[in-house]
Amino acid sequence: MRSVVIDGSFGLDHLRIVGRESERVRPGQVLLKIKAVSLNYRDLLMVTGKYDRRAKLPLVPCSDAVAEVVGAGVGVSRVGVGDRVMPIFAQKWLSGAPTRERLRSTLGGPLNGTLTEAMMLPEEGVVRAPEHLTDVEAATLPCAALTAWTALVVEGGVKPGDSVLVQGSGGVSIFALQMAKLLGARVFATSSSDEKLERLRQLGADAVLNYKTEPQWGRKAREWSGGEGVDYVVEVGGAHTLQQSLRAVRMGGQVGLIGVLSGRTAPLDVATILMSYVRVQGVLVGHRESFEQMNRAIAAAQLRPVVDRTFAFDQAVDAFRYLQTGQHFGKVVVELS
Amino acid sequence: MRSVVIDGSFGLDHLRIVGRESERVRPGQVLLKIKAVSLNYRDLLMVTGKYDRRAKLPLVPCSDAVAEVVGAGVGVSRVGVGDRVMPIFAQKWLSGAPTRERLRSTLGGPLNGTLTEAMMLPEEGVVRAPEHLTDVEAATLPCAALTAWTALVVEGGVKPGDSVLVQGSGGVSIFALQMAKLLGARVFATSSSDEKLERLRQLGADAVLNYKTEPQWGRKAREWSGGEGVDYVVEVGGAHTLQQSLRAVRMGGQVGLIGVLSGRTAPLDVATILMSYVRVQGVLVGHRESFEQMNRAIAAAQLRPVVDRTFAFDQAVDAFRYLQTGQHFGKVVVELS
Amino acid sequence: MRSVVIDGSFGLDHLRIVGRESERVRPGQVLLKIKAVSLNYRDLLMVTGKYDRRAKLPLVPCSDAVAEVVGAGVGVSRVGVGDRVMPIFAQKWLSGAPTRERLRSTLGGPLNGTLTEAMMLPEEGVVRAPEHLTDVEAATLPCAALTAWTALVVEGGVKPGDSVLVQGSGGVSIFALQMAKLLGARVFATSSSDEKLERLRQLGADAVLNYKTEPQWGRKAREWSGGEGVDYVVEVGGAHTLQQSLRAVRMGGQVGLIGVLSGRTAPLDVATILMSYVRVQGVLVGHRESFEQMNRAIAAAQLRPVVDRTFAFDQAVDAFRYLQTGQHFGKVVVELS
Amino acid sequence: MRSVVIDGSFGLDHLRIVGRESERVRPGQVLLKIKAVSLNYRDLLMVTGKYDRRAKLPLVPCSDAVAEVVGAGVGVSRVGVGDRVMPIFAQKWLSGAPTRERLRSTLGGPLNGTLTEAMMLPEEGVVRAPEHLTDVEAATLPCAALTAWTALVVEGGVKPGDSVLVQGSGGVSIFALQMAKLLGARVFATSSSDEKLERLRQLGADAVLNYKTEPQWGRKAREWSGGEGVDYVVEVGGAHTLQQSLRAVRMGGQVGLIGVLSGRTAPLDVATILMSYVRVQGVLVGHRESFEQMNRAIAAAQLRPVVDRTFAFDQAVDAFRYLQTGQHFGKVVVELS
Repeated sequence: MRSVVIDGSFGLDHLRIVGRESERVRPGQVLLKIKAVSLNYRDLLMVTGKYDRRAKLPLVPCSDAVAEVVGAGVGVSRVGVGDRVMPIFAQKWLSGAPTRERLRSTLGGPLNGTLTEAMMLPEEGVVRAPEHLTDVEAATLPCAALTAWTALVVEGGVKPGDSVLVQGSGGVSIFALQMAKLLGARVFATSSSDEKLERLRQLGADAVLNYKTEPQWGRKAREWSGGEGVDYVVEVGGAHTLQQSLRAVRMGGQVGLIGVLSGRTAPLDVATILMSYVRVQGVLVGHRESFEQMNRAIAAAQLRPVVDRTFAFDQAVDAFRYLQTGQHFGKVVVELS
Repeated sequence: MRSVVIDGSFGLDHLRIVGRESERVRPGQVLLKIKAVSLNYRDLLMVTGKYDRRAKLPLVPCSDAVAEVVGAGVGVSRVGVGDRVMPIFAQKWLSGAPTRERLRSTLGGPLNGTLTEAMMLPEEGVVRAPEHLTDVEAATLPCAALTAWTALVVEGGVKPGDSVLVQGSGGVSIFALQMAKLLGARVFATSSSDEKLERLRQLGADAVLNYKTEPQWGRKAREWSGGEGVDYVVEVGGAHTLQQSLRAVRMGGQVGLIGVLSGRTAPLDVATILMSYVRVQGVLVGHRESFEQMNRAIAAAQLRPVVDRTFAFDQAVDAFRYLQTGQHFGKVVVELS
Repeated sequence: MRSVVIDGSFGLDHLRIVGRESERVRPGQVLLKIKAVSLNYRDLLMVTGKYDRRAKLPLVPCSDAVAEVVGAGVGVSRVGVGDRVMPIFAQKWLSGAPTRERLRSTLGGPLNGTLTEAMMLPEEGVVRAPEHLTDVEAATLPCAALTAWTALVVEGGVKPGDSVLVQGSGGVSIFALQMAKLLGARVFATSSSDEKLERLRQLGADAVLNYKTEPQWGRKAREWSGGEGVDYVVEVGGAHTLQQSLRAVRMGGQVGLIGVLSGRTAPLDVATILMSYVRVQGVLVGHRESFEQMNRAIAAAQLRPVVDRTFAFDQAVDAFRYLQTGQHFGKVVVELS
Repeated sequence: MRSVVIDGSFGLDHLRIVGRESERVRPGQVLLKIKAVSLNYRDLLMVTGKYDRRAKLPLVPCSDAVAEVVGAGVGVSRVGVGDRVMPIFAQKWLSGAPTRERLRSTLGGPLNGTLTEAMMLPEEGVVRAPEHLTDVEAATLPCAALTAWTALVVEGGVKPGDSVLVQGSGGVSIFALQMAKLLGARVFATSSSDEKLERLRQLGADAVLNYKTEPQWGRKAREWSGGEGVDYVVEVGGAHTLQQSLRAVRMGGQVGLIGVLSGRTAPLDVATILMSYVRVQGVLVGHRESFEQMNRAIAAAQLRPVVDRTFAFDQAVDAFRYLQTGQHFGKVVVELS
């Protein structure tokens, strides 16, 4: 059984494939044969040492995957051998409020992650994959899709007729676009590439804007919404885009703070939040109960994730490098044979 | 009938008392004889030109007041002559979502405000004052108390056993302390003055901290809460205190952004919001339906506002200057004879 | 100007067309030229004296309509002459909580209703009609559509992947079916007619059931949902169907109590509600803020109401008699030339 | 180790004390030495065969208790030996939505319950007891107190100034009274005994009513509230009191359906629910996350449960008989030496 590990110190150059002995299945645990692993920006930050420098190495990165259950310990009843499952991001966050204890159980750091041929998890830590999806597609759901769902559905309460702004063409943003359409919302999408904007339009975006040629996209989005501002912004940029997002959103609206792709820290005029009665809601993936509800929705709508490219297990480093370029449109996936 | 107006240009030196002719009561309107006016930080910003430089002058400042209904136009049924009432901050925001149209109807700018001997308002724009309060006390409710109520009750859902952090000893903060105790919460209060801290403790604060001598108060509040962080922060400081507030609040907790006393703009590490699944909720006073519910609660609890000092109508400028010093503990009120 | 009135005493035989003098437009009011009026079951109950026997006669029945603004009083700004608008059911319920005062302002009793060639309303009492709808279609929205929206969206929070049960083929039920599909839910529909079931299927129902041939439809719906029960039941039958609805709904699910077509009173095993942690939520149309949000959603989805049949103004009694037969599938509308 | 069991068939006459061998502590489990057990009406129904006739016998009844941890299996980390803990009612309902799977794990049926000298539970199935409470007091919290909390706080959102109606003087009702006061609400309490009404008043009830001498207590409560109706009713009577409760509650208010002491089935006019936009919310105890939050609130307020009488372990049958008489005021507890 082979695993990719961050070895010795952080950095893409320190990713290594190591052989590890298989363990016996313990009570309440399931043994998973990994079929596909999807990469998230968090994984890239982790590997390059920008996420948590205190994480103990060696560490198997990544938290997204789809797998087959190939062994089940005593007492396992939620799933059975042969089932196709996905691990949940925070292994102990099954429902209810986020707590430090629950969020300390995330895969890909501090716990060993999914970029491995096999792994063992508590049966409580996996959910069934929607049947209509390929392995590669199903592997993309645990973080990116659930983050979009938690933001729009659980926290946002987005309803038909609402307007939603999504930024760029990364995994979360495209899921957010697809789900916003599923929710009956109108979507305003931004990107720095006209070609990607065209593809976002094909995925259902009602309006698109190139933020390179139109840096005042906040005002533009507000105008597009009819002047009041959009109901919901899926903020993946972070520090350097938040001010524009606050310009885009309507009074009483919500900004779901999902990512910090543009940076963690920048000057922010917080009076805007106050004067417009805006809610800025940080969103960190979500719990298992939401995951299962989302899967039910994905199955009902036969929604299909957008996969940009797949890489073989031996080329996992290339997958990370590709993610780093930011060229992708949708998810980058490592496929295991 | 005399009114204080900002005349010619902004600045405390441009406050003048002018005589104005009384108007006839119009259908659906009530004529109010003002008994007391309470000052808010917003009023000071407005007078000094820091709130909205495009506001049309001359303008009567202030939005808080208590008044006697001395005339009622045709069709008025909500209140009657002789009733003691308080105007609502945003005259058109009776309930429901905040909208730009509703929030354009605020007293003290753009509409003429309450620092006047008499004024006329639509009957929909006033609510009855709790009977147990003096005029001076009742005058303090419309902005500061309702802001605290909207933050803690409507948006915060603070419940018995929760922990709440309040900053300083201004009007909103003291109301927040009183209401948090009414809600059964434990309260952590900060101030730069040990004397004020002692008074906050007497008002019910369970723990107090001098932020001058302990700049890392966010970490201290977190420790006090048992390590997880406090459930709710009433943020009145704004740009320069928000980072500490984000340190103080628990994962999944909420920061009610109420004021920007320390400044509007500062570098902010937005990743904290994301990583801790925190909600930063801007709060702008609240609507009439909440105001009436709060009054019911204030009456039931016989809660009494904390008034620092009163000034005569002719000394309204002095009241503003005193507010500007930041020495006050509670509300500053102008009393009309 | 002619109006239909309940004259002298209740009963379809006491509906009369009377001529009334037109009034001058008052300040803040709009004069409406009615184009189409849709009938609700409540209107039938009112006319036949089963809704409120203390209602003062003569009374113009009905609350649904679409109209053209043909006059606007002093101070009117929300709408203008030439606009196409719909009256709101409870003229004073603009947003916020339902109260007795707000709900005493309903059209078609106690206030005169819409079955008239012209009427005057406060500008606050109308909303703009979605542009893509015909007059006949738009006339159906104020009660039936808004009731379905309030139930599913405002109170139900129905989300993609949820399962919804709708009963029969009346106006509210068909709107509920259409909106549940718009929300991404799966729908189980019942009827006593196989022909109607086929049409419900064409409108998007995922499963249908003839409750005549299968009186234990509660159990059947539960099985269809996968065993747990459906997430939401739109209960229009009332007393005699509620017990089956409680069998159909999942633990922790919700029954929106919308109508009492089968009767007001019947023995009910209330322990079911307790043991299954079910919410039974009475829903009475909804407020203007919801109405406007619904219209936005209807426009965005280009949703089209299902109209069964139209009648001329002179045949309004026939329209009521037809509604009484229960043969209709969707809305029954009176069209004015 | 001795346990009380329902043996052979249902009925108080079939309660027997049997000796059982102690088990070895399993991984993830804790061994509990029971100190006190509180009886709930559900336990009485279970023993007498009125709750679930299909429950497998022999069965140890009861779910409330306080215990000392005297053993901890491998991997236990939430609690330790020496801790004082209370079991949770539904062992698998830790947070999130109620589901059939989660609710099938309730103590006292189908799982063996707490009326035993020792028992073993998963560490996830217990919570720490508030320190200021005696054993007897702490034993009363798991069902009755949590039911009241879930009703008023989680589902009811009761806030300062609200009005709450509680019925009688059983465990849930008295906790509801105490918590409603803690929440800042005004309380209207009913009983059939003037003596008990006096005690309810001493516990904080703002108004009391003898429903024997005033059967139209719904109307009376409405009048007391000022005419609109009370905001929240804690309905413990069930079928025969619900109609009065619906008369008492305000438009848009909520009836928390907690118990069916007066019976399961009775004719109900469901139109009242619809016409008054009322929510009838079934409440079944609650989950562990709520339990822990409630304990925090109970500790902060130093709230003390009202215990009517205690019985020795050998007199458990007498405790049940006493509960059956309905004479109690507060909780009935079995104390183990």
